[in-house]
Amino acid sequence: MLPDLEVVRKDFPILTRTTPGGGPLVYLDSANTSQKPQVVIDTMVDHLERHNANVARAMHMLGAEATEAFEGARDKVASFLGAPSRDEIVFTKNASEALNLVATTLGLKGDLQVGEGDLVVTTEMEHHSNIVPWQMLCERTGAELAWFTFDEQGYLDLSDMDRLITERTKVVTLTWVSNMLGTVNPIGEIARRAHEVGAVVVVDASQAAPQLPIDLAAMPAEERPDALVFTGHKVVGPTGIGVLWGSRALLEALPPFLGGGEMIETVRMTGSTYAGIPYKFEAGTPPIVEAVGLGAAVDYLSALGMEAVHAHEQAITGYALEGLASVKGLKVLGPLDVTRRGGAVSFEIEGVHPHDVMTVLDTRGVAVRAGHHCARPAHEKYGVQSSTRASSYLYTTPAEIDALVDAVEYTRSYFRLDN
Amino acid sequence: MLPDLEVVRKDFPILTRTTPGGGPLVYLDSANTSQKPQVVIDTMVDHLERHNANVARAMHMLGAEATEAFEGARDKVASFLGAPSRDEIVFTKNASEALNLVATTLGLKGDLQVGEGDLVVTTEMEHHSNIVPWQMLCERTGAELAWFTFDEQGYLDLSDMDRLITERTKVVTLTWVSNMLGTVNPIGEIARRAHEVGAVVVVDASQAAPQLPIDLAAMPAEERPDALVFTGHKVVGPTGIGVLWGSRALLEALPPFLGGGEMIETVRMTGSTYAGIPYKFEAGTPPIVEAVGLGAAVDYLSALGMEAVHAHEQAITGYALEGLASVKGLKVLGPLDVTRRGGAVSFEIEGVHPHDVMTVLDTRGVAVRAGHHCARPAHEKYGVQSSTRASSYLYTTPAEIDALVDAVEYTRSYFRLDN
Repeated sequence: MLPDLEVVRKDFPILTRTTPGGGPLVYLDSANTSQKPQVVIDTMVDHLERHNANVARAMHMLGAEATEAFEGARDKVASFLGAPSRDEIVFTKNASEALNLVATTLGLKGDLQVGEGDLVVTTEMEHHSNIVPWQMLCERTGAELAWFTFDEQGYLDLSDMDRLITERTKVVTLTWVSNMLGTVNPIGEIARRAHEVGAVVVVDASQAAPQLPIDLAAMPAEERPDALVFTGHKVVGPTGIGVLWGSRALLEALPPFLGGGEMIETVRMTGSTYAGIPYKFEAGTPPIVEAVGLGAAVDYLSALGMEAVHAHEQAITGYALEGLASVKGLKVLGPLDVTRRGGAVSFEIEGVHPHDVMTVLDTRGVAVRAGHHCARPAHEKYGVQSSTRASSYLYTTPAEIDALVDAVEYTRSYFRLDN
Repeated sequence: MLPDLEVVRKDFPILTRTTPGGGPLVYLDSANTSQKPQVVIDTMVDHLERHNANVARAMHMLGAEATEAFEGARDKVASFLGAPSRDEIVFTKNASEALNLVATTLGLKGDLQVGEGDLVVTTEMEHHSNIVPWQMLCERTGAELAWFTFDEQGYLDLSDMDRLITERTKVVTLTWVSNMLGTVNPIGEIARRAHEVGAVVVVDASQAAPQLPIDLAAMPAEERPDALVFTGHKVVGPTGIGVLWGSRALLEALPPFLGGGEMIETVRMTGSTYAGIPYKFEAGTPPIVEAVGLGAAVDYLSALGMEAVHAHEQAITGYALEGLASVKGLKVLGPLDVTRRGGAVSFEIEGVHPHDVMTVLDTRGVAVRAGHHCARPAHEKYGVQSSTRASSYLYTTPAEIDALVDAVEYTRSYFRLDN
């Protein structure tokens, strides 16, 4: 656990909200979006009230202040990821845009262009945002989509490696931590193999960045992905901002994505030339106050220490798995080994539809998500359409997990399930 | 002028900032980005502190509150534009993304696909964001880019209409109000002609939406564009949010843009189907708090009344044009007729580089923009690389315009220009 959990909780104003009945709010939907500490909100307010201006293109006093804040946020994010260079940090609107940026530009004319007959490899446990853009790429280029499957415990089936990673393979893209199963995937091992055949390796770190210490520069070069994405709102930052980290080599090789202001060098009606990285990929006015908020968010996480955040997540998740294991007819969809999983715990209760579980839990002030969690293929694997997911974060207490388990038991009794 | 200008100014906390010397800050860079009223900031804070959750996919108490706030913002924006339907409002990250969305998807397989030999028509006074995406479209499809030029006064040369709008023309895209010249273009007249040949009409309202009352439903159908875009941060809203309004017919005909969560109906590894409008175009977690802030922003503008805002802009701009006309060697690039222009006034001072003008003005606390204003082709027309631009908004006072004119006079004396 985080040693000062009650102190941490005081940083999050929303945690004082109560249910209509006056009970405490138990927010267990952090894999969907995280709550925001006061310092993130205050930093955004200070920016809007005192330093707001456009960036790069405005050089007056406020413009210089806004530019410094925005580019300072890029430095903070680079440091949060241990990125070899700040130029490798591209701000997007969310993780989905970051994945689409890579998938779309890999389909355009360029050194890395994916073409007919090439193989694009993903996994069956991806969030839709790491499936659909690649389906679109394949549709546009005639490439073929292939995927790693996973076993009943929720671990990737790596015995397929030789079939999937071949000379035809141009891209291998996978999630570091599954948003539904919680599985932590061996991205280094897969990247190493993918790099042997010269494939581009893309890692969706949307669930990893909030939970795991990341140090790109410290990874062995062969195991380091070529691109890694995450989103602000899951790392206690605001919505409206995502991050694409890409190696300099990758970002320089990819053609531009969106066209507009700031991504150009020269525009003539007859043709344009483009700016260097990262600006080549940042068309238009960027999400300025959002980047500034994200900078405060990663500072907040770094001050707590990502090792401590990770340890807390593991402790809480272990406690949740233990508690849920005591509930009759409840099946966790995903790994039970807490050392190989993140904080999202999806489960089924025999005889109750997940939406009903969510609704009853909500009446008890326990906020969880029910549905396919944007991971339908992973659900199909278990022969279900949807599940209930409880996901903790650095502000989650053991007492909240107790409330979850109690509420799940209550749900079973509500639906008069036998004991 | 707005009758309660000093009351309005009190709504904008940043206007109390002073220069390092303690003098007042004169912010004349609103065409670049507008300042934010307290109510927009407070609404965002309230959302983050009390209602933050993901939308649509989270159905618990906070999820329902967040979804209601987000979809409520869509209603407010629809009403602000007089959109025939709320489903026609697509949230993007900025105006550039909205333009890229249309330009990119028009290049994809579909009923409206632009192809080899087709004509895409724009103007020489566009912001880069309404040039580069279309250049990219042409490059990808083999279509040809053509453009309206403009005259010395900054008015579009409509005598080219017959050459430009022909059976080959598939798209006509233009700015309603120029961000550099200030010109208000006759979008209705051009749309009417474009629709006669079946072209799709796209209007960049980035500078129009802050200044002009817009009522799409009230426009004659033949004159109504098929798509219109603007951005949140220029209408006293936050960064990180833009709007694409598209007619139902257009949005339904366009294929999806980015792939990911929420834009899908069903995802299987072997293929996906897509959601209806507007969600088809909103992949991933949307800019939630930004939409909520934008909702508060358009409410703020509507409460003042866009007619009043427009009248204020015209009065202030007229006063600025008058003041600047008194400065020897100063030439305004754009219309001098205030009834045919918006609030952005770009100018040259003979013998002083625009960046030097900006720098000296900044020492006097007057914030203007120097550069190409993301409109290089329009500058080339005048044989210059850049200009100085002063741009007012609803909080701009006549005294601030006096300060601008004084500072410009001071700049001339600073550089020892003869009188």
